[in-house]
Amino acid sequence: MAFSYEFIGYLAAMLTTLSFLPQAIMTIKTRDTGSLSLGMYSMFTLGVLMWLIYGLYLRNVAIIAANAVTLVLAASILLVKVQNLLGKR
Amino acid sequence: MAFSYEFIGYLAAMLTTLSFLPQAIMTIKTRDTGSLSLGMYSMFTLGVLMWLIYGLYLRNVAIIAANAVTLVLAASILLVKVQNLLGKR
Repeated sequence: MAFSYEFIGYLAAMLTTLSFLPQAIMTIKTRDTGSLSLGMYSMFTLGVLMWLIYGLYLRNVAIIAANAVTLVLAASILLVKVQNLLGKR
Repeated sequence: MAFSYEFIGYLAAMLTTLSFLPQAIMTIKTRDTGSLSLGMYSMFTLGVLMWLIYGLYLRNVAIIAANAVTLVLAASILLVKVQNLLGKR
Protein backbone atom coordinates (compact mmCIF):
# COMPACT_ATOMS: atom_id res chain seq x y z
CA MET A 1 0.00 0.00 0.00
CA ALA A 2 2.86 2.33 0.90
CA PHE A 3 4.36 1.77 -2.54
CA SER A 4 1.25 2.92 -4.38
CA TYR A 5 1.04 6.09 -2.27
CA GLU A 6 4.71 6.88 -2.89
CA PHE A 7 3.92 6.41 -6.58
CA ILE A 8 1.10 8.99 -6.27
CA GLY A 9 3.64 11.42 -4.77
CA TYR A 10 6.07 10.91 -7.65
CA LEU A 11 3.31 11.21 -10.25
CA ALA A 12 2.04 14.39 -8.53
CA ALA A 13 5.54 15.92 -8.61
CA MET A 14 6.01 14.95 -12.27
CA LEU A 15 2.64 16.42 -13.30
CA THR A 16 3.05 19.77 -11.49
CA THR A 17 6.63 20.10 -12.76
CA LEU A 18 6.02 19.11 -16.40
CA SER A 19 2.74 21.08 -16.62
CA PHE A 20 4.79 24.23 -17.23
CA LEU A 21 6.26 22.68 -20.40
CA PRO A 22 3.15 23.12 -22.64
CA GLN A 23 2.70 26.67 -21.27
CA ALA A 24 6.36 27.56 -21.94
CA ILE A 25 6.22 26.10 -25.48
CA MET A 26 2.95 27.98 -26.22
CA THR A 27 4.27 31.25 -24.79
CA ILE A 28 7.62 31.09 -26.60
CA LYS A 29 5.97 30.13 -29.92
CA THR A 30 3.07 32.62 -29.90
CA ARG A 31 4.74 35.28 -27.69
CA ASP A 32 1.15 36.01 -26.54
CA THR A 33 1.13 36.77 -22.81
CA GLY A 34 -2.04 38.91 -22.65
CA SER A 35 -3.88 36.68 -20.20
CA LEU A 36 -0.81 35.66 -18.16
CA SER A 37 -0.52 37.36 -14.79
CA LEU A 38 2.79 39.19 -14.18
CA GLY A 39 2.14 38.83 -10.42
CA MET A 40 1.79 35.08 -10.74
CA TYR A 41 4.97 34.52 -12.76
CA SER A 42 7.02 36.92 -10.59
CA MET A 43 5.93 35.22 -7.34
CA PHE A 44 6.11 31.73 -8.82
CA THR A 45 9.61 32.12 -10.32
CA LEU A 46 10.94 33.57 -7.04
CA GLY A 47 9.21 30.80 -5.08
CA VAL A 48 10.70 28.05 -7.28
CA LEU A 49 14.17 29.63 -6.92
CA MET A 50 13.72 29.47 -3.13
CA TRP A 51 12.55 25.83 -3.37
CA LEU A 52 15.76 25.12 -5.32
CA ILE A 53 17.90 26.79 -2.61
CA TYR A 54 15.99 24.82 0.04
CA GLY A 55 16.56 21.58 -1.90
CA LEU A 56 20.29 22.33 -2.19
CA TYR A 57 20.41 22.90 1.59
CA LEU A 58 18.62 19.58 2.21
CA ARG A 59 20.70 17.89 -0.55
CA ASN A 60 17.40 16.39 -1.72
CA VAL A 61 17.86 15.37 -5.36
CA ALA A 62 14.08 15.20 -6.05
CA ILE A 63 13.48 18.78 -4.82
CA ILE A 64 16.57 20.05 -6.68
CA ALA A 65 15.71 18.34 -9.99
CA ALA A 66 11.99 19.23 -10.02
CA ASN A 67 12.63 22.87 -9.17
CA ALA A 68 15.59 23.30 -11.53
CA VAL A 69 13.35 22.19 -14.43
CA THR A 70 10.41 24.34 -13.27
CA LEU A 71 12.70 27.35 -12.76
CA VAL A 72 13.89 27.26 -16.40
CA LEU A 73 10.29 26.92 -17.68
CA ALA A 74 8.75 29.58 -15.39
CA ALA A 75 11.62 32.03 -15.96
CA SER A 76 11.24 31.63 -19.76
CA ILE A 77 7.52 32.49 -19.53
CA LEU A 78 8.24 35.44 -17.20
CA LEU A 79 10.91 36.73 -19.61
CA VAL A 80 8.47 36.84 -22.57
CA LYS A 81 5.84 38.52 -20.36
CA VAL A 82 8.32 41.22 -19.24
CA GLN A 83 9.61 41.72 -22.82
CA ASN A 84 6.01 42.23 -23.99
CA LEU A 85 5.28 44.71 -21.17
CA LEU A 86 8.47 46.68 -21.91
CA GLY A 87 7.77 46.60 -25.66
CA LYS A 88 4.32 48.10 -25.16
CA ARG A 89 5.60 51.30 -23.51
CA MET B 1 21.39 28.34 10.48
CA ALA B 2 18.80 25.55 10.28
CA PHE B 3 16.06 27.98 11.23
CA SER B 4 16.78 30.38 8.40
CA TYR B 5 16.80 27.52 5.86
CA GLU B 6 13.49 26.19 7.20
CA PHE B 7 12.19 29.75 6.81
CA ILE B 8 13.28 29.71 3.14
CA GLY B 9 11.29 26.48 2.69
CA TYR B 10 8.15 28.02 4.21
CA LEU B 11 8.54 31.21 2.17
CA ALA B 12 9.07 29.13 -1.00
CA ALA B 13 5.87 27.15 -0.32
CA MET B 14 3.90 30.32 0.41
CA LEU B 15 5.12 32.03 -2.78
CA THR B 16 4.44 29.12 -5.14
CA THR B 17 1.02 28.52 -3.53
CA LEU B 18 -0.15 32.15 -3.40
CA SER B 19 1.24 32.98 -6.87
CA PHE B 20 -1.90 31.42 -8.38
CA LEU B 21 -4.09 34.00 -6.57
CA PRO B 22 -3.29 36.99 -8.87
CA GLN B 23 -3.71 34.71 -11.93
CA ALA B 24 -7.08 33.38 -10.66
CA ILE B 25 -8.34 36.92 -9.87
CA MET B 26 -7.21 38.19 -13.30
CA THR B 27 -8.73 35.22 -15.16
CA ILE B 28 -12.07 35.36 -13.31
CA LYS B 29 -12.33 39.17 -13.74
CA THR B 30 -11.30 39.44 -17.39
CA ARG B 31 -12.37 35.89 -18.47
CA ASP B 32 -9.48 36.20 -20.97
CA THR B 33 -7.71 32.84 -21.28
CA GLY B 34 -6.25 33.25 -24.78
CA SER B 35 -2.62 32.83 -23.74
CA LEU B 36 -3.25 30.25 -21.00
CA SER B 37 -2.29 26.68 -21.96
CA LEU B 38 -5.08 24.10 -21.55
CA GLY B 39 -2.39 21.41 -21.27
CA MET B 40 -0.72 23.23 -18.39
CA TYR B 41 -3.88 23.76 -16.34
CA SER B 42 -5.15 20.21 -16.98
CA MET B 43 -1.85 18.64 -15.88
CA PHE B 44 -1.30 21.09 -13.04
CA THR B 45 -4.81 20.71 -11.55
CA LEU B 46 -4.55 16.90 -11.71
CA GLY B 47 -1.05 17.06 -10.20
CA VAL B 48 -2.17 19.28 -7.31
CA LEU B 49 -5.11 16.92 -6.64
CA MET B 50 -2.60 14.05 -6.42
CA TRP B 51 -0.37 16.11 -4.09
CA LEU B 52 -3.44 16.63 -1.89
CA ILE B 53 -4.18 12.87 -1.81
CA TYR B 54 -0.49 12.23 -1.02
CA GLY B 55 -0.62 14.82 1.80
CA LEU B 56 -3.76 13.19 3.23
CA TYR B 57 -1.97 9.81 3.16
CA LEU B 58 1.06 11.30 4.97
CA ARG B 59 -1.26 13.34 7.27
CA ASN B 60 1.07 16.26 6.55
CA VAL B 61 -0.86 19.47 7.31
CA ALA B 62 1.52 21.70 5.29
CA ILE B 63 1.15 19.58 2.10
CA ILE B 64 -2.65 19.33 2.60
CA ALA B 65 -3.17 23.06 3.25
CA ALA B 66 -0.92 24.33 0.44
CA ASN B 67 -2.42 21.98 -2.14
CA ALA B 68 -6.03 22.51 -1.06
CA VAL B 69 -5.58 26.27 -1.65
CA THR B 70 -3.75 25.74 -4.97
CA LEU B 71 -6.36 23.21 -6.13
CA VAL B 72 -9.20 25.74 -5.72
CA LEU B 73 -7.22 28.44 -7.56
CA ALA B 74 -5.96 26.21 -10.40
CA ALA B 75 -9.36 24.55 -10.88
CA SER B 76 -11.04 27.99 -11.11
CA ILE B 77 -8.62 29.04 -13.87
CA LEU B 78 -9.09 25.70 -15.70
CA LEU B 79 -12.89 26.08 -15.47
CA VAL B 80 -12.84 29.49 -17.20
CA LYS B 81 -10.43 28.15 -19.86
CA VAL B 82 -12.73 25.18 -20.59
CA GLN B 83 -15.85 27.39 -20.61
CA ASN B 84 -14.14 29.67 -23.15
CA LEU B 85 -13.12 26.73 -25.36
CA LEU B 86 -16.64 25.27 -25.26
CA GLY B 87 -18.19 28.69 -25.88
CA LYS B 88 -16.10 29.15 -29.01
CA ARG B 89 -17.48 26.08 -30.75
